[in-house]
Amino acid sequence: MPQQMLTMTTRGQGLYEFTDKADAFVEQSGIETGLLTVFVRHTSCSLIIQENADPDVQTDLKNFFSRLVPPSNDPSMRWMIHTTEGPDDMPAHVKSALTQVSLGIPVVGGRLALGTWQGLYLFEHRERGHQRQIVLHLSS
Amino acid sequence: MPQQMLTMTTRGQGLYEFTDKADAFVEQSGIETGLLTVFVRHTSCSLIIQENADPDVQTDLKNFFSRLVPPSNDPSMRWMIHTTEGPDDMPAHVKSALTQVSLGIPVVGGRLALGTWQGLYLFEHRERGHQRQIVLHLSS
Amino acid sequence: MPQQMLTMTTRGQGLYEFTDKADAFVEQSGIETGLLTVFVRHTSCSLIIQENADPDVQTDLKNFFSRLVPPSNDPSMRWMIHTTEGPDDMPAHVKSALTQVSLGIPVVGGRLALGTWQGLYLFEHRERGHQRQIVLHLSS
Repeated sequence: MPQQMLTMTTRGQGLYEFTDKADAFVEQSGIETGLLTVFVRHTSCSLIIQENADPDVQTDLKNFFSRLVPPSNDPSMRWMIHTTEGPDDMPAHVKSALTQVSLGIPVVGGRLALGTWQGLYLFEHRERGHQRQIVLHLSS
Repeated sequence: MPQQMLTMTTRGQGLYEFTDKADAFVEQSGIETGLLTVFVRHTSCSLIIQENADPDVQTDLKNFFSRLVPPSNDPSMRWMIHTTEGPDDMPAHVKSALTQVSLGIPVVGGRLALGTWQGLYLFEHRERGHQRQIVLHLSS
Repeated sequence: MPQQMLTMTTRGQGLYEFTDKADAFVEQSGIETGLLTVFVRHTSCSLIIQENADPDVQTDLKNFFSRLVPPSNDPSMRWMIHTTEGPDDMPAHVKSALTQVSLGIPVVGGRLALGTWQGLYLFEHRERGHQRQIVLHLSS
């Protein structure tokens, strides 16, 4: 049952890929058939598996969520009451609720069974940079 | 492979925390390194991990989802056709689809690896109270 | 640790049930207590557990997501920049981000612990039909 704590440094809203770190963790374990669980220990960022080919996909994803959940000082969001931590905080919680806090990815033949175009990303929803902790857990 | 069926009683739309029950289940198992899977056996409520500090976050989350998916008798939702179980039923299915039916949380050092501000919640989407079943499954 | 690759053929946007295939995989394994993980290897379709009784629920779900995320040639979506793969491609990535790429379902007494009304579906977000790969992973 190998486990690893991964710390990632973010620099504002957007997607940060860590497929290579998850790949390395699986490879080092020597496990051929198993399940990798990825878990993020925060409520204002989240996890997402998305296309790793055209970076425009990441831009559009970020913009979709920011249009769906504008900052709490936007006129359309005046109903929000949790505003003391800044206008980007409550929208960050909502975006986190709409995406993932945990993901399970099978390991087949010693490798993550990701599709050709799938990359594993941390999705930062706060405007400022943060240190984010991700737990990798591999069962065999 | 300990498993436990947890029944929760809800009293209308909102978040109901059960972190303490999941903690107790992990502690009783004596498992030091493992993975807790939480699964909800319904399609009109769901699971969510969110901030456990300021209850205003829960109010804003509930309100965001109710604004995004109004009742089916709201003028903007006249296109909905599954209305026989009440105006809150089809929106409940949509809110369930937008959040989680299962969550995987690593167990590290005998404890759930939740972040400081993370709580585990059942998210009830129906207006009336319900008895809800959650399956806890712990692998070591 | 039985694993199986499941290929599903879709015929445009909508939900495609595969509960029976997952049931059969669990039954063939002979495993009584375990966890089934379902993982989809694509970023323009996704997984969803939803009501299997009234097919109107599936229609409403499909329509909700298409109203929330219209095609990129819709006037309201002119801000999207990833448009080279067709007007339904970037919305498909967004719908995939809003739903699930992986699901964990406990196995209790040799059967999936799905609720009475829960069915397991592939949610196709592209307009054309596709061959889609799903990985089933069963841990005991």
